[in-house]
Amino acid sequence: MDLSKELAVGIDIGGTNTKWGLVNHRGAIVQKGELKTDSFPTIESFIDALHETLMPVIDTAGDDKVVKGIGIGAPNGNYYKGTIEYAPNLHWKGIIHLTDLVTKRFNLPSSLTNDANAAAVGEMMYGAARGMRDFIMITLGTGVGSGIVANGQLIYGHDGFAGELGHTTIRPGGRKHWGTGMLGSLEAYCSATGIVFTAKELLHNSTEESTLRNYSLDEIDAKRVFDCAIQGDKIAAEAYRFTGEILGEALANFIMFSSPEAIVLFGGVIKAGDLIMQPTKEHMERNLLPIFQNKIKLVFSELKEADAAILGASALVWEMRE
Amino acid sequence: MDLSKELAVGIDIGGTNTKWGLVNHRGAIVQKGELKTDSFPTIESFIDALHETLMPVIDTAGDDKVVKGIGIGAPNGNYYKGTIEYAPNLHWKGIIHLTDLVTKRFNLPSSLTNDANAAAVGEMMYGAARGMRDFIMITLGTGVGSGIVANGQLIYGHDGFAGELGHTTIRPGGRKHWGTGMLGSLEAYCSATGIVFTAKELLHNSTEESTLRNYSLDEIDAKRVFDCAIQGDKIAAEAYRFTGEILGEALANFIMFSSPEAIVLFGGVIKAGDLIMQPTKEHMERNLLPIFQNKIKLVFSELKEADAAILGASALVWEMRE
Repeated sequence: MDLSKELAVGIDIGGTNTKWGLVNHRGAIVQKGELKTDSFPTIESFIDALHETLMPVIDTAGDDKVVKGIGIGAPNGNYYKGTIEYAPNLHWKGIIHLTDLVTKRFNLPSSLTNDANAAAVGEMMYGAARGMRDFIMITLGTGVGSGIVANGQLIYGHDGFAGELGHTTIRPGGRKHWGTGMLGSLEAYCSATGIVFTAKELLHNSTEESTLRNYSLDEIDAKRVFDCAIQGDKIAAEAYRFTGEILGEALANFIMFSSPEAIVLFGGVIKAGDLIMQPTKEHMERNLLPIFQNKIKLVFSELKEADAAILGASALVWEMRE
Repeated sequence: MDLSKELAVGIDIGGTNTKWGLVNHRGAIVQKGELKTDSFPTIESFIDALHETLMPVIDTAGDDKVVKGIGIGAPNGNYYKGTIEYAPNLHWKGIIHLTDLVTKRFNLPSSLTNDANAAAVGEMMYGAARGMRDFIMITLGTGVGSGIVANGQLIYGHDGFAGELGHTTIRPGGRKHWGTGMLGSLEAYCSATGIVFTAKELLHNSTEESTLRNYSLDEIDAKRVFDCAIQGDKIAAEAYRFTGEILGEALANFIMFSSPEAIVLFGGVIKAGDLIMQPTKEHMERNLLPIFQNKIKLVFSELKEADAAILGASALVWEMRE
């Protein structure tokens, strides 16, 4: 098959919006669009709408082009079973057999995984991890997600749920996670939500001047902490430094697990640049055995943030076994 | 090739002794022996002695038997390069190109990895992990080693050094490791050495009666703590309980990384049975996300301790790519 003639559909299902794109082998999005996930009360009505939107796109992809399949990234997506299981941010409850429904409706093969795994496949196919056989993708946004590639393959684990690094414990007995109730998890500190928590704690525990004190606690959100940090506010900058310290310690542990060539970081949190990356790098190196020091690259995603989820989902199609 | 006609040589290189065995596909040791590692001042003299011992064994393996290759487990063994690199317990210093030397001398293919990785391959081939595609092997002895299998393959990482779980940080800022100087690593707590440390700390920090108080601190070793714990000594039992708590927390983190079907435990430390396993299991489950709870098996190695290292090393031969 001539690869230049193949296209893949990538679908990223989020709690609010679902984005789709038609993607070629080089990661160019030929056509894209979106629909409101939460406006469909049932999964069946959602798939009907997807079908109505996408079939004309697939049919007119081009005379000489073939759409090879549909890749889907979704919260709590299970690769082996093709299911979404008990996703807290979707209002379709329980276990949804998504790939069965999609394949039947579209008459095309489909593949599903969680959003962070899809992002990792996207980086491997089109982005910062091209050509790498061993890397770890960490997404630092509202939550902390991860996708782990070893021996050139995504690690799904025995049940399809591997790679929940955001929920590993990095401070035993530490901060309680607002969703899981677990103590001291990586996500409790290194997500956007975690950074806001940290900033509020710092404000409470010190008398240091801070622009953040001009706002009520309710008004302090990730954007505000970010803006203040960039403008040199000491408390806000310290929130990022502390976050980097914890992230660096966690990355050191992950490295000693799978010894990746690189760690690829993605998401809103890393926009703070050196404010977070410098302490991350420092504490990562400090917590590594000598045999791992100064050789694991810490790199940023090379996919445009707006397109990354679609690209990642589409990349699942190229990974499908024939 | 008729598998029943193939044999593999397994060699386990330790700081004091080197054990070898001739092993068949079912994991039966046809012949075995050992020599003193530390009596050979150079690697060349060691390989000469190995050759002298093993060639008659290989030559007389049986008229219809073929020795397919040599598998070696060694501290700091690197699978990709076939090297032993800066092993602290061997007096051959620097980087030793072991498989090059062995293959040249024996005219047989050879393969090398570290001891814990070899143990994992051994469990997958002959032991408790037969048929599993995703599991983690943890060896709890003088040190804490690990071997990680995902998608049916050992994870070596980009450089061959993956799976150093004993050196991951489980108590940030905690106990200083006697060898690495790192703070709060798993090995600092859950190795035999770590348990002795814990027992001494408990003796120091409490006034609880204990048979261990009949000995000077220098006389308290792993065997003594074990014996006292088994006989119901509260301090010694608490040392195992605390060790299990830390081990359980660490296992939860490892599970959320690779979602293994099972964790296979091996080594002297687990001889304490429920004294350590009950708290390990409890704290493992408590620190897992619900999607992982009550489904990951915690099992003991099924290989005889005396033979496990040879079997593991020999199993590398069956894994060799043709």
